[in-house]
Amino acid sequence: MRLLNGFPFLLSLFIIIGCVSSDAERSTYIIHMDKSHMPQTFTGPHHWYSSTVDSIKIAQPTTSNGHQSPARVLYTYDNAVHGFSAVLSKDEMETMKKSPGFLSAYGDRQVTVDTTHTFEFLKLNPFTGLWPASDYGKDVIIGVLDTGVWPESKSYHDEGMTAVPSKWKGTCEEGQEFNSSLCNLKLIGVRYFNKGVIAANPNVTISMNSARDTDGHGTHTSSTAGGNYVTEASYFGYAMGTARGVAPKARLAVYKVIWDEGRYASDVLAGIDAAVSDGVDVLSISMGFGQNTPLYEDPIAIASFGAMENGVVVATSAGNRGSQTGRLHNGNPWVLTVAAGSVDRWFSGTLTLGNGLTITGWSMLPARAVVKNLELFYNETMSPCDSAELLDTLNNLGPRIIICENKQRQPFLYQMSSIATFAPSAVRAAIFVSDGPVMDDAAAFESNDFPFPGVIISSKDAESVIKYAKLGSTSTASISFQETTVGTTRAPAVSSYTSRGPSRAYPGILKPDVMAPGTLVLASWSPGSFVTTLEKNMLLASDYNIISGTSMACPHIAGVAAMLKGAHPKWSPAAIRSAMMTTANPLDNTLNPIRDNGYNLAVASPIAMGAGQIDPNRALDPGLVYDATPQDYANILCSVNFTTKEGVLVQKFGRTLTNVDYGGGTYKAKLTVPKGTTVTVSPETLVFGRMYDKQSYTLTIKYRSGNLTFGSIVWVQEKGKHTVRSPIVVAPRVEISS
Amino acid sequence: MRLLNGFPFLLSLFIIIGCVSSDAERSTYIIHMDKSHMPQTFTGPHHWYSSTVDSIKIAQPTTSNGHQSPARVLYTYDNAVHGFSAVLSKDEMETMKKSPGFLSAYGDRQVTVDTTHTFEFLKLNPFTGLWPASDYGKDVIIGVLDTGVWPESKSYHDEGMTAVPSKWKGTCEEGQEFNSSLCNLKLIGVRYFNKGVIAANPNVTISMNSARDTDGHGTHTSSTAGGNYVTEASYFGYAMGTARGVAPKARLAVYKVIWDEGRYASDVLAGIDAAVSDGVDVLSISMGFGQNTPLYEDPIAIASFGAMENGVVVATSAGNRGSQTGRLHNGNPWVLTVAAGSVDRWFSGTLTLGNGLTITGWSMLPARAVVKNLELFYNETMSPCDSAELLDTLNNLGPRIIICENKQRQPFLYQMSSIATFAPSAVRAAIFVSDGPVMDDAAAFESNDFPFPGVIISSKDAESVIKYAKLGSTSTASISFQETTVGTTRAPAVSSYTSRGPSRAYPGILKPDVMAPGTLVLASWSPGSFVTTLEKNMLLASDYNIISGTSMACPHIAGVAAMLKGAHPKWSPAAIRSAMMTTANPLDNTLNPIRDNGYNLAVASPIAMGAGQIDPNRALDPGLVYDATPQDYANILCSVNFTTKEGVLVQKFGRTLTNVDYGGGTYKAKLTVPKGTTVTVSPETLVFGRMYDKQSYTLTIKYRSGNLTFGSIVWVQEKGKHTVRSPIVVAPRVEISS
Repeated sequence: MRLLNGFPFLLSLFIIIGCVSSDAERSTYIIHMDKSHMPQTFTGPHHWYSSTVDSIKIAQPTTSNGHQSPARVLYTYDNAVHGFSAVLSKDEMETMKKSPGFLSAYGDRQVTVDTTHTFEFLKLNPFTGLWPASDYGKDVIIGVLDTGVWPESKSYHDEGMTAVPSKWKGTCEEGQEFNSSLCNLKLIGVRYFNKGVIAANPNVTISMNSARDTDGHGTHTSSTAGGNYVTEASYFGYAMGTARGVAPKARLAVYKVIWDEGRYASDVLAGIDAAVSDGVDVLSISMGFGQNTPLYEDPIAIASFGAMENGVVVATSAGNRGSQTGRLHNGNPWVLTVAAGSVDRWFSGTLTLGNGLTITGWSMLPARAVVKNLELFYNETMSPCDSAELLDTLNNLGPRIIICENKQRQPFLYQMSSIATFAPSAVRAAIFVSDGPVMDDAAAFESNDFPFPGVIISSKDAESVIKYAKLGSTSTASISFQETTVGTTRAPAVSSYTSRGPSRAYPGILKPDVMAPGTLVLASWSPGSFVTTLEKNMLLASDYNIISGTSMACPHIAGVAAMLKGAHPKWSPAAIRSAMMTTANPLDNTLNPIRDNGYNLAVASPIAMGAGQIDPNRALDPGLVYDATPQDYANILCSVNFTTKEGVLVQKFGRTLTNVDYGGGTYKAKLTVPKGTTVTVSPETLVFGRMYDKQSYTLTIKYRSGNLTFGSIVWVQEKGKHTVRSPIVVAPRVEISS
Repeated sequence: MRLLNGFPFLLSLFIIIGCVSSDAERSTYIIHMDKSHMPQTFTGPHHWYSSTVDSIKIAQPTTSNGHQSPARVLYTYDNAVHGFSAVLSKDEMETMKKSPGFLSAYGDRQVTVDTTHTFEFLKLNPFTGLWPASDYGKDVIIGVLDTGVWPESKSYHDEGMTAVPSKWKGTCEEGQEFNSSLCNLKLIGVRYFNKGVIAANPNVTISMNSARDTDGHGTHTSSTAGGNYVTEASYFGYAMGTARGVAPKARLAVYKVIWDEGRYASDVLAGIDAAVSDGVDVLSISMGFGQNTPLYEDPIAIASFGAMENGVVVATSAGNRGSQTGRLHNGNPWVLTVAAGSVDRWFSGTLTLGNGLTITGWSMLPARAVVKNLELFYNETMSPCDSAELLDTLNNLGPRIIICENKQRQPFLYQMSSIATFAPSAVRAAIFVSDGPVMDDAAAFESNDFPFPGVIISSKDAESVIKYAKLGSTSTASISFQETTVGTTRAPAVSSYTSRGPSRAYPGILKPDVMAPGTLVLASWSPGSFVTTLEKNMLLASDYNIISGTSMACPHIAGVAAMLKGAHPKWSPAAIRSAMMTTANPLDNTLNPIRDNGYNLAVASPIAMGAGQIDPNRALDPGLVYDATPQDYANILCSVNFTTKEGVLVQKFGRTLTNVDYGGGTYKAKLTVPKGTTVTVSPETLVFGRMYDKQSYTLTIKYRSGNLTFGSIVWVQEKGKHTVRSPIVVAPRVEISS
């Protein structure tokens, strides 16, 4: 057992897949160096590192495929971290370890990549709160590490943008199908890094050797964080409206580090290092390594520490590994680890029966299909809709809508694909019957896959449809598509796919930190990359995509962080993290506890959603913050030591709050005690005399082995509006395994 | 044999399918009356007509289905024509004929219904010519008789429109799903007429009992004539751009006379009558009756005469009955009968082979399909792509693009539908090989049907594709869709479907009059009505449609006529017709004679395209016009008398030209003599002293029996820019048959 709490300086990280190579075969290593050891004879770190590599290389090692990879420096890192990556043999690496200034090294690893009504759902508005307070993030620079950017996407037009802030030191790196004129006052810079990919795959051809995004993921995340206004954006008619980033006036700098040909830590590290050097304020990193990467070998954890030291707020995605505990990545203390939740939006089709009955069902058919006054057909034997032989019997009949019953929620996509493949052309559409709730359940559907014309309706609604269909061939129905409903209840819910804490990389820390919209988010996409499938196997492209993942949640947090930075230029990264976390909302839009779509809509725990759903306008004015300096983080790293004895354990936490409100205030502690624990707080009242006053308290928790339980400590301002909430979690220990 | 010429007062008409009923059974008759016979005891014509019907009705006639239809007046017509339509039995009709004031009567008949880079193709531009001269048709009212209007279509927004002209006396008639607030400064009025449909089908339920267009045809034609500017209009990505009507500031008044439930002359007549009463300047009628309807029984011919008497220019469609001679409708002298031609625009997909070769082929796939780096597959036995058994053998193979050879141009749609139905999902796309020219042949494709991903390429281009495919599974290809090319050569060409003259209804007149863009025209569409089919049988809807027909050509002429009316408010309908016809262009954009897609691209004759392609800017300033008063038209009707003796015939035509240019001018006749004829003109020089001067000449033609031959007379201004051209046609007589 161990205790996790959600204080902003207790935080998670990405974990790495090991590489295996023969001693003589060269591969890429990331080497951290103590720059103070650099002899003055060198003109700079790059000179030093190259000379070191030259001095240690062993002539002509033979590789297993006969190919000789020269020993060489790939990147010099000098901003987020100090050190370099180099192609070395194991023997050479052993020599390297003995070089002056050597700190640590590890093999290069592969990273895992993990969308716009969401701004409304987050209550961002032009009249009050974070948008006007930060002027929509104007002059804040968001760096996005991802698959690059599709610069022609309308989200990157720079209408309404003023001159690029003078602090910007980056560039618009030219490359294949990417000249520097593609950057502008919105997309202020791009860079790309693929030496790591090429070193690991010497014969590879980089298919798009520039920051151009041939995938779509980076275009989606960057437009979500800081895209400009785009009217009439939609995904095949769904979610039609004016799209915009969370911080629509923020500047975007895109670092392409993920390639169709591979995704390597050395490239990611180069991207973070360059972003820090270029002067970004916020970094959005929708990717991570495996959950078992130790902190000291996780380049993103290490580099984001350096970014934090430089005042850069780093938002990362928790990962999409589902509801099992302890699968989260990016679980390190100094980044924001973002979980994904649903949005109060529903995509639907309306079924209208010939008798006048109308039923709204789920649909995301990516086509404007006309299904009008067709015969409604029901046959119990045929109703699983998965038998080509049975469906074939409809071959010479007139056009009709078939009712498919498959009383399980998951196999709809399979059922739709199967009917698209097997059904004769007489079957023009299908009604799929679900045994679960359908409408008013924002959490129910997390995928945009919908290849065949139809709607998914509840089994309760299906009763009257089937009864009417049984009247025979005079029964007709119509289905309209491309409907979007906003304002559905019980939103947000934790998304089923979002990776759960705790962090294996850093025990004792509550991760994820906070939840943001991640399910079915609309943002821009690369126009040549397919977004969904229609009918049998037609892949479709779109300028916008509606997709789901913690990758989509992360840039929402980056956008909010950018605006907090804009509104409070003096706040540290820790203060910004604290403001977002202590003001996060554990309740959904019905004021009931947020539920978890990964646990049959049971009440969600903090290891699923952290402190809760981001509340940007409240984060603007948190009252108090848990601030932390880089040294504080370093102290935490050195002091973590959880004992795992049976019986009652007592653990004390000392915490300091900083008043960030104008004038003073008195706060009283309000405890919600986790089941099976005893919690005391001392003192129970904190009095702040003026802005930036600090007050400390001690939290003592007595607990026993058992299941996951959770509660919270909330500092409530007397005669004031501020409440400063942190979850407290007692969780079973997660074993680290590779 | 007879002689046809294209002088603007020699013109065509729609012809009607007869109705059969038993003597006692009542049906609808259209009855023309001499209003001067109305006794003064009546308050007005409606009172007179109803009283007459009341006085002649025979008590309770028995109908064949036992249903008793009361004798009654459906519509009173008092503007375009004088008279009424009424439900009467044959016996009652016989009595009616003896009533005072009775002129003529005939049974109700059914009508046949026959947008937007086209403005550019017609060289309309903001800097010079008809657009600026007419202020884009501002304050000219175009009445459109059709299937109604979808008022929410963006083409009807009224941004930039000023107050409705005071001459407008119409209304926004409310009805089902149509309240009067749907009219605005652009769509200034709507009315709907369906008493004729209901009288003919007493048990019918009108599914949309208002001016709302559930079909799309009326929305397409009205937005083509006078739609406002709409940015980013496209048909599934094709023809993307800012759509606009030909006269983008003209006002639209829509008269719904065509119904899903039937299309009757009595309703059409009511629409024309109302439009004239409401004060429209131009009428666009994209419909007509069968080609054998005699002039004196054609309600559109009769009503459009009345419209012309009221100063209304009437544009009508020639019909879509193809390249056989004499199938044209609306061939009456006082309307513009419009033929359809192609546009210099091409829709395509680009095929890129793995070896780098790129080929552009025809494609209108209505989806943004992604076909990328798939195996290219060619098997000669399988290449007709019409055998389900052969295609099945690909079932368990990887995704691929199949090459389909079917060396005839017509069956592509069949071939595509078949491959969409039979091909296993491994077949992701197809390359269809055509033996005809493909690119740079604007006339080649006239349909938007393209249900399966692929391109149509020429057999010449196919050689290298097949050779590459034969290399085996390493041969790959990609296809991109939704490409639009503007500026293709040999445009316009006469469309294969456009109905050819001469007019059977009115012998001796050259019809059609003029050609306008009719093939693959983009304009607005009713969003719930399907526009095309995808894959096996998925019907798709769109806010815009790209369709082909003389129905699309007609509103182009209506729009041009509206702007001529705006620029020259004093010009008569005959002067406007003359201006368009004498300035029409018989050459295509390569300055070669326009070709005919209905005759293997041979040089087109005037019975296919009339005087040629409309040239709006030249029509603004024709120099001279052949003016005509209603009395002139009546004189023509009474004087036509063609003898058909063998041997040499001599025929003389006396014609009068009016100078509409500022100041005087001298014109010399330039004759192009039809093969096998002798033509003389006297005098050969016409001198006009000032504006509105009139000069007459005589044309004498000696000719023999033979094939269709054609030439022209052009009056060429000396030291001036004007040329006034009229085609001369000698055509075999078309026998009139029912």
